[in-house]
Amino acid sequence: MINIPRGTQDILPEDTKQWRYIENKLDELMTLYNYQEIRTPIFESTELFARGVGDSTDVVQKEMYTFLDKGDRSITLRPEGTAAVVRSYIEHKMQGDPNQPVKLYYNGPMFRYERKQKGRYRQFTQFGVEAIGAENPSIDAEVLAMVMHIYQSFGLKHLKLVINSIGDADSRKEYNEALVKHFEPVIGDFCSDCQSRLHTNPMRILDCKVDKDKEAVKTAPRITEFLNAESTKYYDEVKQHLDNLNIRYEEDPNLVRGLDYYTHTAFELMIDNPNYDGAITTLCGGGRYNGLLELLGGPNNTGIGFALSIERLLLALEDEGIELDVEDDFDLFIVTMGHEADNYAVKLLNELRHNGVKADKDYLSRKVKGQMKQADRLQANYTIVIGDQELENNEIDIKDMATGNTEKINLDEVVAYFKKKE
Amino acid sequence: MINIPRGTQDILPEDTKQWRYIENKLDELMTLYNYQEIRTPIFESTELFARGVGDSTDVVQKEMYTFLDKGDRSITLRPEGTAAVVRSYIEHKMQGDPNQPVKLYYNGPMFRYERKQKGRYRQFTQFGVEAIGAENPSIDAEVLAMVMHIYQSFGLKHLKLVINSIGDADSRKEYNEALVKHFEPVIGDFCSDCQSRLHTNPMRILDCKVDKDKEAVKTAPRITEFLNAESTKYYDEVKQHLDNLNIRYEEDPNLVRGLDYYTHTAFELMIDNPNYDGAITTLCGGGRYNGLLELLGGPNNTGIGFALSIERLLLALEDEGIELDVEDDFDLFIVTMGHEADNYAVKLLNELRHNGVKADKDYLSRKVKGQMKQADRLQANYTIVIGDQELENNEIDIKDMATGNTEKINLDEVVAYFKKKE
Repeated sequence: MINIPRGTQDILPEDTKQWRYIENKLDELMTLYNYQEIRTPIFESTELFARGVGDSTDVVQKEMYTFLDKGDRSITLRPEGTAAVVRSYIEHKMQGDPNQPVKLYYNGPMFRYERKQKGRYRQFTQFGVEAIGAENPSIDAEVLAMVMHIYQSFGLKHLKLVINSIGDADSRKEYNEALVKHFEPVIGDFCSDCQSRLHTNPMRILDCKVDKDKEAVKTAPRITEFLNAESTKYYDEVKQHLDNLNIRYEEDPNLVRGLDYYTHTAFELMIDNPNYDGAITTLCGGGRYNGLLELLGGPNNTGIGFALSIERLLLALEDEGIELDVEDDFDLFIVTMGHEADNYAVKLLNELRHNGVKADKDYLSRKVKGQMKQADRLQANYTIVIGDQELENNEIDIKDMATGNTEKINLDEVVAYFKKKE
Repeated sequence: MINIPRGTQDILPEDTKQWRYIENKLDELMTLYNYQEIRTPIFESTELFARGVGDSTDVVQKEMYTFLDKGDRSITLRPEGTAAVVRSYIEHKMQGDPNQPVKLYYNGPMFRYERKQKGRYRQFTQFGVEAIGAENPSIDAEVLAMVMHIYQSFGLKHLKLVINSIGDADSRKEYNEALVKHFEPVIGDFCSDCQSRLHTNPMRILDCKVDKDKEAVKTAPRITEFLNAESTKYYDEVKQHLDNLNIRYEEDPNLVRGLDYYTHTAFELMIDNPNYDGAITTLCGGGRYNGLLELLGGPNNTGIGFALSIERLLLALEDEGIELDVEDDFDLFIVTMGHEADNYAVKLLNELRHNGVKADKDYLSRKVKGQMKQADRLQANYTIVIGDQELENNEIDIKDMATGNTEKINLDEVVAYFKKKE
């Protein structure tokens, strides 16, 4: 027997309905916000992620599914969505689209070779948004409002929005210098990743999982002290919009995120349920990125976006005991007795389905009792039994499975009967 | 600049609406037929395809994206859907499900390293169906009726269903022996693939693209002459059902399909438009497979299924000039003048969207004229203009963009105005 690859999962019929419900809800929400879907390939040139995600990140260094194709090109299964969306934006010259900012969303599988743990898979599913081409606090506010709207629309209540500003390039430069000065004397006590980060990307020491409890991390200078006037004004306006929208948030000056290209607004949405016992508390993360487009050979446009994991959303729903309102009704099961009745049922089924009726019959030559059980399991709203007698008399009983009541109708009026019900 | 990998495509916002329309329609059709969705990973163990698709096939020998993961396991991006669905069926012991046959469908990206040509991509999208656990001509008929229903539901008319029977294992064995005898004297004139197929899988010589015009192919013995009584009866019943359903078909005794595990019913749906100038005429192919489950370590159950390419469906729609009825309306564009109005619009937008209204505003500090142009491009049904005066008077004009008519309402009644429209 051949098994599923380690760290991946099958999504089985009892669960796919929930996935489709979530996807359709997200599609619907996106139309309200005027965001449009884009689909990029499952794999990209490895160079795209090395440049766009950053050579120094764990994702690129340790977690990518990278291989040579038959043309000896290095390709990588996408570990995240932003780099590919930006690649597509540049390749299709979307900066020339008269509708600006360009508001895009995506939803699909991503791949990271990580240790297996609850809620983490090597193939996981990200929904994400990118609004590219406007640097305006009101679009940062729109994106944050959208994040809240998404989770609330599934009924989640225990949510905590955490925000920060990393400032513009100038602010960030000064801050980085201060961090180097702060960590240099003690860097020998830090993990080897942090030691190499010190001069390449010192901010990332602040969100190192290994060193997070070190005293020097707690006493490190904070980005807020280094924001220049423009960056402070931008951040203040974002917060004013959030206040105006009655969106509650916490500020966390250590929220700098793992990727290299963020500027200004950074945010995470966390599970804020005191009873939550899951290992994962971050549902969604995002922020503004200035410079990513240029880094990938595009125009000097700026963007803001976020990504959320569908798997974690499902865990959060389970945790709050929320059941999605998935449609699960089934109209009619046709019980047949004998070869003639079965032939008739094949034709009747086809007509019913062409008229939008959800219907099925037996294919295993089960006895009537077994067929009725099948109808029960399917939770069919109605059943009919067709045998030689019904064919001869052109008359059948339609049984309402909820009430047990039956109604006599002509066999050749079954389609009309169900069509009228709609 | 980094480009998209060769042979792959971005699906851009102007096209994703069509894709979602098709996907939603397929999901809806599947509920009518009582098929349920399953999602398997993008990659599987290489062995699964080597065994399940067949070592001797072009797919396995030449076209797979195969590589070692970081744990030195050989994995392959799935080149087709059936093997993975069957793997999942076995792994989750679906033969024990009381609802039989197990009726599954899937829809997602597949990968084959092929030469680039119109309508063929290295990443392409297959929708497919598998009904496992019943060997009954009426389920073969259901699957064929479903194929026709799918294409007709998109408005396609120029379709040709081609069917054949490969018979059961006994019939196939006798036929294979006859084929070896027939081709052996002339095999030296055939391509090297066919030469190696002669003793491993002689039926596949019949659908070799290189040798298809050879005289010996045309004069080869036909499977229909070798079907035993049981196989003939099965095939006759399938055809009787099709006649009964008024589904027209052609029989093609050379239709044996490229994969090794087919038995009994085999079929293809072709474009039958005399004006069609595309390179690709097969829209969909499938058939019954007996033995595949056992080959993969599962029970001796039989299945029937098909797969269709979404890309080819789109080409066929284009060819017949069919435009899908994608919803594309937009409710309201808010034109703002000044900082206060913009702040107000942020809050109003949020309320509108929470009430299901599709709405947007400007984020680039455009002048009024530029904002009105944006509203036109979005084909917004309505616009409002908010400035200091409107804020002060709590009164605005709602402009119907189709008629040009305006209506005065209170600014704080905008949400109610649109909510009532629904």
